[in-house]
Amino acid sequence: MRVLILGGDGYLGWPTALRFSSRGHEVSIVDNFSRRRWHNEHSTDSLTPIRSLGERIDAWREISGREIHSFVGDVEDGEFLDKVVAETLPEAVVHYGEQPSAPYSMISRRHAVKTQHTNVIGTLNLLFAIRDHVPACHLVKLGTMGEYGTPNIDIEEGYIDIEHKGRRDTLPFPKLPGSIYHLSKVHDSHNIHFACRIWGLRATDLNQGVVYGIETGETAQDERLLTRFDYDEIFGTALNRFCVQAIIGHPLTVYGKGRQTRGFLNIRDTLQCVELAVNNSAELGEFRVFNQFTEQFTVLELAELVQRAAAKLGHRVEIRSYPNPRVEAEEHYYNAANTKLRDLGLQPHLLGDELIESTLRVVQRYQARVVERAIAPKTRWKPGELGEKLAPPVARAITT
Amino acid sequence: MRVLILGGDGYLGWPTALRFSSRGHEVSIVDNFSRRRWHNEHSTDSLTPIRSLGERIDAWREISGREIHSFVGDVEDGEFLDKVVAETLPEAVVHYGEQPSAPYSMISRRHAVKTQHTNVIGTLNLLFAIRDHVPACHLVKLGTMGEYGTPNIDIEEGYIDIEHKGRRDTLPFPKLPGSIYHLSKVHDSHNIHFACRIWGLRATDLNQGVVYGIETGETAQDERLLTRFDYDEIFGTALNRFCVQAIIGHPLTVYGKGRQTRGFLNIRDTLQCVELAVNNSAELGEFRVFNQFTEQFTVLELAELVQRAAAKLGHRVEIRSYPNPRVEAEEHYYNAANTKLRDLGLQPHLLGDELIESTLRVVQRYQARVVERAIAPKTRWKPGELGEKLAPPVARAITT
Repeated sequence: MRVLILGGDGYLGWPTALRFSSRGHEVSIVDNFSRRRWHNEHSTDSLTPIRSLGERIDAWREISGREIHSFVGDVEDGEFLDKVVAETLPEAVVHYGEQPSAPYSMISRRHAVKTQHTNVIGTLNLLFAIRDHVPACHLVKLGTMGEYGTPNIDIEEGYIDIEHKGRRDTLPFPKLPGSIYHLSKVHDSHNIHFACRIWGLRATDLNQGVVYGIETGETAQDERLLTRFDYDEIFGTALNRFCVQAIIGHPLTVYGKGRQTRGFLNIRDTLQCVELAVNNSAELGEFRVFNQFTEQFTVLELAELVQRAAAKLGHRVEIRSYPNPRVEAEEHYYNAANTKLRDLGLQPHLLGDELIESTLRVVQRYQARVVERAIAPKTRWKPGELGEKLAPPVARAITT
Repeated sequence: MRVLILGGDGYLGWPTALRFSSRGHEVSIVDNFSRRRWHNEHSTDSLTPIRSLGERIDAWREISGREIHSFVGDVEDGEFLDKVVAETLPEAVVHYGEQPSAPYSMISRRHAVKTQHTNVIGTLNLLFAIRDHVPACHLVKLGTMGEYGTPNIDIEEGYIDIEHKGRRDTLPFPKLPGSIYHLSKVHDSHNIHFACRIWGLRATDLNQGVVYGIETGETAQDERLLTRFDYDEIFGTALNRFCVQAIIGHPLTVYGKGRQTRGFLNIRDTLQCVELAVNNSAELGEFRVFNQFTEQFTVLELAELVQRAAAKLGHRVEIRSYPNPRVEAEEHYYNAANTKLRDLGLQPHLLGDELIESTLRVVQRYQARVVERAIAPKTRWKPGELGEKLAPPVARAITT
């Protein structure tokens, strides 16, 4: 199958490219290296020493004998994306090509605008390119569980049956996204749903939980194939950050009470889910939504898991409550459905002490690369005195 | 009160500016003349001979003794909008400054991107400017009833109480917008709701029906104060188009079966509603949604009303079904709530023969200005053979 992966140089995009290539699919990548650029601007870096895209592709050819094609450019550039789709004629597009950080989107107006521009316009460009060149192509789009927020009812997978004043309909699940980034994903979902309803395209929206983990079957084969691993306050996700903090002796940065409940999954399960979605396509005209996570935890539970696993490796780790830089409920009802991917055959890698220990060991290997000043939370959802003191240096340093 | 009106040179924006100015408010206008530009590019024009913004403002000063301030620029330009808000320090912003046409948004990828860029990024820029300079300012934003689509349940005003698996919440009403333009308004609503929830801003989202009518109390005072009146397939709305068609002897262009039901209102009621919203502000942190229409009609009912009124003036008018260029249900359930504005005191001008006759008479006055080739529907929601034959000349002529 011809598979096009947008954001194929990223944390999830690169391992996904390797996975599809290892299965014998014809894989092409689009990326503009915006994450690498952002790290350059802040003098931070991935914990893992990642190679240039060219070196990665060369290494993969050497190891597997397979070719991955790459196209360097911006998804916001409609002409560029149109040409890539026309040239590669994908049967499936896996779309990770977005600004993926909630804190980044909250730094300033410019970051907010950049986030919604990249994500919304990029996806719009993609929908038109698919419509015009490969209308039967299956779009597999990465969304986020954060689109739903924390409503006081059970979260379903994309749609909800509503009975109202004696009538019924099945309608898109109402969304309460918690950042400008999460909003951009809600906008994407509405745009993609429209393209399926009106143009008859087919798409699967994967509302993903928080991903953790460092290695996949393919990236573990050679150090040149490693994927990136971010632990900074902007791009790092909870468990990955806690693992790095534990190894360097930084208190675990729990925001507020730490009772915020979220869905989580292992990076290996991200690959499984995306493969299941691609191998079991949506129908023409169908906008299918899967909630892509395997377990729910509170942030405090995660911190305690890391504390315990670190202790086994001889690290004494403190858990500290930081003033919550986000505006979010710290105690709330949370119960989200996630059966559709399991029905397709997902075999979850659940989070256990063993898994955390193995992640901690990989972090230990690259411990010398940790930039400690990137760890403490600085970007605040609500500008205010504390925000003014802490946030501006981050905001001013960026020159995109 | 200091009132800033974005899109203040437009069909509704200009009469709104006059209304607030006539009440003694300090009115400033922002516009970039995108509608005038678009007409230039297509060699079409408003039916009414509208003056330049400078001439309009001069005429209003002469007639009323009042000053309206104007700022020429793009809402997409964040620095510009930030400076305007910082300089005018508005207590209320009425935001009409968007690309308002569904057909325009469906012409091509470029038009779709332009629409969502202008509308979504413009509104984002505005939210940041309000947050940073006038956080207590009341944002009155024009949305559209088209955000809801045609669900099989009653449409409520912005929110719906949902009981689900034994739990309850009041959540944003699910949206099924029918064009790239309508989608942009859904995105706006989510962004504004977020700004109210997270930053504590206050906003009223006016989900407006289809507006008809040509004169308001202020614009009727002098020909130099006339507002624009579009009847072309891109920017003209149903009833206004039918009135022009009736006068020039063009068959009334009903799309498909004409059983599409929508909410409608008189331009005089738009002004009433906006004034009621401004005079009865939302609370800090509140995102308030009003459905702004006074009556529901099917498109065919409207055509029949115009046919009858035209007959009284001696015009024999044919109603013709055109292949529907849109993708929409032509028969569907439709029952939308609209009590909140009436609770605030709205006195509707209902659509009667008299009102249509008076509109027809004004159209007659400017009959010689009608450009007939602008009338037939050309822009199709779904590209196809018919679309390819008809749409490209429209698409290619635009060079924004």
